[in-house]
Amino acid sequence: MKFTCSQEDLNNCLSLVIKAVPGRPSHPVLANVLIKVDKEIQMVCITGFDLSLGIQSAFNAVVEESGILTVPAKLFIDIVSRMEGGLAIALDSEDENLIHIKSGSGKYNIRGMSADEFPELPEITGDQIELPAKELIKGLKGTLFSASPDESKQVLTGVHIVVSADEIEFASTDGHRLTRVQTPIEDGADLAMTIPAKALKEVEKMLSANPTLESVAIRFDDSQILFEMGTQRLTSRKLEGQYPIYNQLIPNKFTGSITIDRKALLGSAERIGVLADQRNNILKCSINYESQSISLSVDAKEVGNGEESVDVQCDGDLKEIAFNIKYLTEGLKSLNCSEVQIQLNTATSPVVVTPLTGEKIIYLIMPVQLRN
Amino acid sequence: MKFTCSQEDLNNCLSLVIKAVPGRPSHPVLANVLIKVDKEIQMVCITGFDLSLGIQSAFNAVVEESGILTVPAKLFIDIVSRMEGGLAIALDSEDENLIHIKSGSGKYNIRGMSADEFPELPEITGDQIELPAKELIKGLKGTLFSASPDESKQVLTGVHIVVSADEIEFASTDGHRLTRVQTPIEDGADLAMTIPAKALKEVEKMLSANPTLESVAIRFDDSQILFEMGTQRLTSRKLEGQYPIYNQLIPNKFTGSITIDRKALLGSAERIGVLADQRNNILKCSINYESQSISLSVDAKEVGNGEESVDVQCDGDLKEIAFNIKYLTEGLKSLNCSEVQIQLNTATSPVVVTPLTGEKIIYLIMPVQLRN
Repeated sequence: MKFTCSQEDLNNCLSLVIKAVPGRPSHPVLANVLIKVDKEIQMVCITGFDLSLGIQSAFNAVVEESGILTVPAKLFIDIVSRMEGGLAIALDSEDENLIHIKSGSGKYNIRGMSADEFPELPEITGDQIELPAKELIKGLKGTLFSASPDESKQVLTGVHIVVSADEIEFASTDGHRLTRVQTPIEDGADLAMTIPAKALKEVEKMLSANPTLESVAIRFDDSQILFEMGTQRLTSRKLEGQYPIYNQLIPNKFTGSITIDRKALLGSAERIGVLADQRNNILKCSINYESQSISLSVDAKEVGNGEESVDVQCDGDLKEIAFNIKYLTEGLKSLNCSEVQIQLNTATSPVVVTPLTGEKIIYLIMPVQLRN
Repeated sequence: MKFTCSQEDLNNCLSLVIKAVPGRPSHPVLANVLIKVDKEIQMVCITGFDLSLGIQSAFNAVVEESGILTVPAKLFIDIVSRMEGGLAIALDSEDENLIHIKSGSGKYNIRGMSADEFPELPEITGDQIELPAKELIKGLKGTLFSASPDESKQVLTGVHIVVSADEIEFASTDGHRLTRVQTPIEDGADLAMTIPAKALKEVEKMLSANPTLESVAIRFDDSQILFEMGTQRLTSRKLEGQYPIYNQLIPNKFTGSITIDRKALLGSAERIGVLADQRNNILKCSINYESQSISLSVDAKEVGNGEESVDVQCDGDLKEIAFNIKYLTEGLKSLNCSEVQIQLNTATSPVVVTPLTGEKIIYLIMPVQLRN
C-alpha cells in the first residue's frame, strides 16, 4: 500500500465512516477501519462496520501500490484531522501491519491489524430500486425522531418504510405517538421493511450533506439493506418482526378541530414545559370555543403554577385534554409549517396533528388521562 | 413588590447572577436568588450567593412597589429566558411568598422563600483601590488556566495578586507549571492576596463582556474581597495561607535558548499529543543545533510512534528534554503572540517560555524525567 491524497479527502471520508465504528467493540478489530487502496482505479476505500451498521466511502488518490489494512479508527482520525495539506501514506517495507503517515512537519507510524480479521460487509444480491433523494430526506426527517430509543423495543427502534407503485410511506412509533409521512414517487415498487433508526439517521445526514445527489439506489434481501449514494455506501440489517398495523390506529373521523399558529403553540408549550418538568410532564389543555382560544396549564403544586393562552380557530365540544409535554413539543418541532390543524375526539382517544399546507404528514399523539 | 421590566434586562441579570448559585446547595434557600426591588431608585437588584462567591447585578425597571423575596434560581431563569417583550412581576396580595410573572400569552405563579433566610453578602469596609479593567483582564486571562483545579490544594486553587506602586503582578501555579503576568499601573498600592480562580473567572467574564468599563473598584478586608464593576458586584472569600514564594523558582540565568513560531510548535504538539495520549502524556523534545530545528517525538509502543520537526533558532548544549504534553500545549495557547522564546538549563531544571514581543509574561514549566 502506497498512496498520496489530500488531508481533506481522507479526513472527510474518515469522519463519515467512523459513525459505524462501535464505541465498545465486541472484537478488537471492530475498533478499526478497513483501508483498501486500489492502483487500477486510483481510489482509496474506507469501511467501518459494527456488525449491524456498515459505512463505506471512497475517494480519489494517487496510488502507487495497491494494498489493504485495518487501523485504529479513533487514533487515525485524531491524527489526520490535525494535519494539513497533502499526506503520503505507505505500509512499512518489512512490517506489513505498520502504516506510515507523512505530512508537512510530521511522520507517524501506526500499528494496524490484518484485513483478514475484519468482517466483510454483507453481500446483498437481492432486488434493487431507485428512490429520489429529496423524498427520502423528507420522509426520514419527519419520522426518525419518534422511533423508540429503547433497544428492548426491537421493531419500534426502526422506521417502517412501505414502497408502493406511486408512493413511499414512512412511519415510526414508540407506543406513545406515531408519525407517518407519505410522499409520491414515480416507478415505485412493492415492498415493506423496518430499518434501524440509528442507520437511517446516518443515511439522512449523508443525503443532506450531499445536495447534488438526485437518487439513491437501494438493494435488499431478507435480512439486509444497502444504500448506495454516489461513492458512499451504507449497509444495515433489517429489523425482524411484524411492525404494528399503525394505519388502523389513525382515526378517520373527528368531532373537534383546532387550527393554530405552530410557533405560538410551541413557544407557549416550551415555557409552560419548564413547570411541567417540575411535576410529571403533564400539560392540561383547555379549549374555549367562545373566546376561540386554548389555554395550556400546569399546576406544579408547591413549586408554582402557570397558564399560557393562545388564540385559535376551533370547533367541537371537548373542553379538556392533557398531553405529555415532550410528545407535544417534539411533534410541533418536526412539522416545518406555519399553521397546524389539531383534530380530536375525546379526552382519551388519539389526537392527530397535521400541517395546514396539505402535505401528507400526520403526527398522532395519545393524550394522558387527567387525575383530578 | 410590583414592577415591570424588559425580558432582556431581567434575563441578562439572571444569567450573570446564577453563576454564584450552587448546583448542590447546602441549604435550600441558596438554590434561590434574592430579588430586591426599590421604588425610590427604580431599580431591581438580584443576588446569588454560595457562601463563598456572591454576584449581584442591578437594572432599571418601572417600580410601583418596593419589596424583597427569594425565588428558585433555575426555575425562574428557565421560564424568563423563554419569554419575550415586557414582563410584569408582582407579589401575590395574600401570599407574600408567591410571585406572579406575566408576559404576552403567559401567567406564572412561582413559590419563593422569605428573604430573611437568605444570607447577606459580606460587608466589606476595608481599603479600596481602583484598577484599570484592561490590565485586570490581561492578568487574569494569562494566569487563570494554570491554577490548580484540585480543591484540596487550597491556596493553589487561586490566583495570587500583588499590587505595588507601579505594577500589578498576577501568578498561579498548580505545582507543575507557573504563570506570572506583570502589568504596569499608575497610582498603585501595597497589597498581596490570593483569590479563588472560580471567582476570578467570573470577574474576567464580566469585564470582558463590558468593554466600556474603564476601571474596577476593589475593596477588601482580611478575609473578603469585593469587585465593583458598574452596576455589578462580585464578592469572594480570599484564600488563606502562605502562597508559594514563586519568584525564587524562576531561574534568572539560562544556558540555552530556542526561538520558535508559536502556532507551528502548538500544531506539532497537538498532533503528536494524540499519540502521547495513548501512553503517559510524555513528549520527548530533541534539539538539533546544527540543523536549527527541534523534533517532538512520542513512542507509544504497541500503538505506534511519531515525530514532528519544527524549524527554530537555537543555541546552547542541551540535547534532550521531556514535557507533559498538556502543560506544553496549554502554555502555548495562553501566550497570544506569534513567536515565543524558550529558555532552559538542564533536562531537569525549570524551563521558561516568554513571548518575543517583550510583554512581561512568563510561563514556567517543569520538565519530566525521561525513563529510557
